[in-house]
Amino acid sequence: MLGVFQTSQKLRTSLRLLSRAGLPPVDLQVQLLLRGRSPQSATFSRELHLGPDGPASSPAAAPRRLPFSRVTVEDLTFFGKTLPGRAITDPDLVQSSNEDWLKSVRGSSEVLLRPQTTQEVSQILSYCHSRNLAVNSQGGNTGLVGGSVPVYDEIILSTSLMNSILSFDKISGILTCQAGCVLENLSLYLEERDYIMPLDLGAKGSCQIGGNVATNAGGLRLLRYGSLHGTVLGLEVVLADGRVLDCLSTLRKDNTGYDLKQLFIGSEGTLGVITAVSILCPRKPKSVNVVFLGCETFDQLLKTFQLCKGMLGEILSAFEFLDSECMRLLNTHLKLANPISDCPFYIVIETSGSDSDHDSQKLHNFLEEAMTSLLVTDGTVATEESKIKTLWSMRERVTEALTHDGFTYKYDISLPVERIYQLVTDMREHLGKRARSVVGYGHVGDGNLHLNVTSPAKDPALLASIEPFIYEWTAKFQGSISAEHGLGLKKRNYIYYSKSRPAVAVMGKMKTLLDPKGILNPYKTLPDDLK
Amino acid sequence: MLGVFQTSQKLRTSLRLLSRAGLPPVDLQVQLLLRGRSPQSATFSRELHLGPDGPASSPAAAPRRLPFSRVTVEDLTFFGKTLPGRAITDPDLVQSSNEDWLKSVRGSSEVLLRPQTTQEVSQILSYCHSRNLAVNSQGGNTGLVGGSVPVYDEIILSTSLMNSILSFDKISGILTCQAGCVLENLSLYLEERDYIMPLDLGAKGSCQIGGNVATNAGGLRLLRYGSLHGTVLGLEVVLADGRVLDCLSTLRKDNTGYDLKQLFIGSEGTLGVITAVSILCPRKPKSVNVVFLGCETFDQLLKTFQLCKGMLGEILSAFEFLDSECMRLLNTHLKLANPISDCPFYIVIETSGSDSDHDSQKLHNFLEEAMTSLLVTDGTVATEESKIKTLWSMRERVTEALTHDGFTYKYDISLPVERIYQLVTDMREHLGKRARSVVGYGHVGDGNLHLNVTSPAKDPALLASIEPFIYEWTAKFQGSISAEHGLGLKKRNYIYYSKSRPAVAVMGKMKTLLDPKGILNPYKTLPDDLK
Repeated sequence: MLGVFQTSQKLRTSLRLLSRAGLPPVDLQVQLLLRGRSPQSATFSRELHLGPDGPASSPAAAPRRLPFSRVTVEDLTFFGKTLPGRAITDPDLVQSSNEDWLKSVRGSSEVLLRPQTTQEVSQILSYCHSRNLAVNSQGGNTGLVGGSVPVYDEIILSTSLMNSILSFDKISGILTCQAGCVLENLSLYLEERDYIMPLDLGAKGSCQIGGNVATNAGGLRLLRYGSLHGTVLGLEVVLADGRVLDCLSTLRKDNTGYDLKQLFIGSEGTLGVITAVSILCPRKPKSVNVVFLGCETFDQLLKTFQLCKGMLGEILSAFEFLDSECMRLLNTHLKLANPISDCPFYIVIETSGSDSDHDSQKLHNFLEEAMTSLLVTDGTVATEESKIKTLWSMRERVTEALTHDGFTYKYDISLPVERIYQLVTDMREHLGKRARSVVGYGHVGDGNLHLNVTSPAKDPALLASIEPFIYEWTAKFQGSISAEHGLGLKKRNYIYYSKSRPAVAVMGKMKTLLDPKGILNPYKTLPDDLK
Repeated sequence: MLGVFQTSQKLRTSLRLLSRAGLPPVDLQVQLLLRGRSPQSATFSRELHLGPDGPASSPAAAPRRLPFSRVTVEDLTFFGKTLPGRAITDPDLVQSSNEDWLKSVRGSSEVLLRPQTTQEVSQILSYCHSRNLAVNSQGGNTGLVGGSVPVYDEIILSTSLMNSILSFDKISGILTCQAGCVLENLSLYLEERDYIMPLDLGAKGSCQIGGNVATNAGGLRLLRYGSLHGTVLGLEVVLADGRVLDCLSTLRKDNTGYDLKQLFIGSEGTLGVITAVSILCPRKPKSVNVVFLGCETFDQLLKTFQLCKGMLGEILSAFEFLDSECMRLLNTHLKLANPISDCPFYIVIETSGSDSDHDSQKLHNFLEEAMTSLLVTDGTVATEESKIKTLWSMRERVTEALTHDGFTYKYDISLPVERIYQLVTDMREHLGKRARSVVGYGHVGDGNLHLNVTSPAKDPALLASIEPFIYEWTAKFQGSISAEHGLGLKKRNYIYYSKSRPAVAVMGKMKTLLDPKGILNPYKTLPDDLK
């Protein structure tokens, strides 16, 4: 065995000892106590659950530590020489990178590396590969499934200092930048040039484009601009052994061989470390409108969606919904007043276009049709920014309202759009009085439901009623048990609810092909039974 | 050695003997004599070049036959039992599937299999895998790079009978169908339901959706709806050993593990046989307009593109160009009159939207601005279908006009948009009087140039002046030597001009992982030095 790194004693906590013993270091039932949309903008209380909580065999629990080497003094010397002043071992500094921002998973890494160049990433991985040292690559650390932090003592490879914009072609709208660029900074850079990023997330103030790509982030603009599989034109990736894979094309069309970059989009840092991204950016819209509508039934809501797609056509940029239970929580906990009369369902529609007169007229025509055909029973429109924000907050602050309702069990489900609310109804019936609230909201346009169940306190019996019921229900209708959050550590073993065994077996072989020693972000994405 | 199949003698031609000797069976310098857009709609003369033409070591020439088994009577018995009446050995029937539609590549397969179900495809591949029989999967056989036909005696696996629509969700616009559905049939089906396919090609009357996906077809709607990597939501693929990989998701969002289906998009049948596709379809536009404009310089053309993106915004659906040399050929050979005054460059702009008044007004405003700022010098607009077709024909019939100008050397290059015409200028200067015409046209919006060089007759010296000059020039500016046509047989060895050696090496490993015996569409896509 290699000697254990001796220079830092502070972190030898019971937590670490626990992890060295091969036991799950953290509780993985996350109590989501977030308020607001991002780590920066939000006021939120956090609660860290340490020690095993559920049964030891919980599919979400961390597996035993794999037999990677441990970091030695010689390793630290190498890292210090390679990254002068940027190989961090001060436990206080490493600490924040060991924990996810939900404070739900905590690793015990003793080294945080902060490369600035692709070459440095290559040198680090080449070295770690030869030494059999595990590496956790980390962007803005805003993930929700424990994918962005070490589980045990993996070396943390942060892309935060890789934050240069490499080029922007103002004719084609193609941006090329290092992986560590913060999404909001890119947005500001582009808006000055009359463009926008094709994705927008609540976490934009912290999340990095490399992490967005690694997790195939969805977000608020997916309905309009599509997924990153379409908008990402090129990637530069460093493979586990340090080889640099240059697929950093800035072309819209390129049919020369297999499109390798696609494999890294959504692979959560388990197949390679993304070091640079090129992405196709849309023009900044000149006009934005938001409408808040009420519907009597979910069927009417879906009919409104169809009507909307036809009449708003190319200017439709969001179609979101929340149910009356969400509204009740917004009223009760946040004192937000319903901007319209009470209804079982509410819709938020956003339009973005290049001509405000045209957009207003389209919206007017659509609303008239929706009202006269009795699809919607009430509604209000916003064209100025402050009212737009007020209406959007009815949708965006549901998460915050939930945190005041008790302990929250959160699910991110994707289903054929006509099924999404049926799951909420069935869950409500299934749980009966065991749950305090069962609420549904989400992205109708993307078929993406956020289903949340609250109870006065953490309730293992309630959890046992929710799972695997929800996963089985989702699987029955060919849905996805993780629409946009990924699998990370917490959901890796649930993959079979959404993917076939042959498909998962092929994923395992891809992993072995690209990372034969398994050093990249171990314990993530793939289920334990492949290891 | 296994016995050679004896039941069919008709095909024992000199061509076949040639191929058995391991020599290149066909001439791969293609004389493109196409007229019109598709095999169906076009009147075109064809010329088949047999026997080696260039040097034996030409990168486009077929490599020697690999040591696959040869089809035996026992094999035919198995195929006949598995596919009653659909295992074709009549040479006259097999013949048309042995040749690509350009008549530039001809294989010598003796068996054409026509499965109807995924299960049948699975049985066939499982059998061929165990027997080490090579398989050429074939859709509509409309490819341009010799990827869709056998090179030697590979078994032809046609998806033509797999032509059922499996489902269409009229709320989300998600279509699921078997791979053999003809693109035009899908378009007609969708248009009746107020939707369209997100791609449109000249070959739509013959090409199949499975082949479109396998070749990552681009086409006329890419500027607006993006590539198949974004619009294809799911695939069902049969792997080389017969395993069925069910990734036939109908969800817009699904982050559960690696997105394996992406790997098959654009892999030209070398990694698996696509048997079913699900795809996101846009609403049918209610209004379409076309404008034909003239510009003095390519720089002004690019500025017009920028202005257009800003002012037409969400309704812009095509921005195409041709140069004055193209116009001269249209005038001379097809007697098409220039609809505007003579200019060095011409632009075709198409808009598609949901409100004809709004679209007309946006177009009017844009044209006024483009004219008053002197970016364009002349122009004409079409809103009715017959005039729209007339204007589009100025762009679409350039290919046909070229065939009347002599022997044509054709290239499909993708470059940063500000570079695309510089290649034409440089090529013209480089070739001087050795070429009859050097013309440029293509998809400005996609950075995709079609560069064509004509000469009175086939001219190896001229070819030697064009290549590798054009590939080196393209590589210098990080362009793609095959923007939308793929690599197939003809361009496989040019891959290094657009992809790095480490990237191609990874592609080779992917191939080995998914098709260890290399039975799927051998001699295609990947360069010979990987074999």
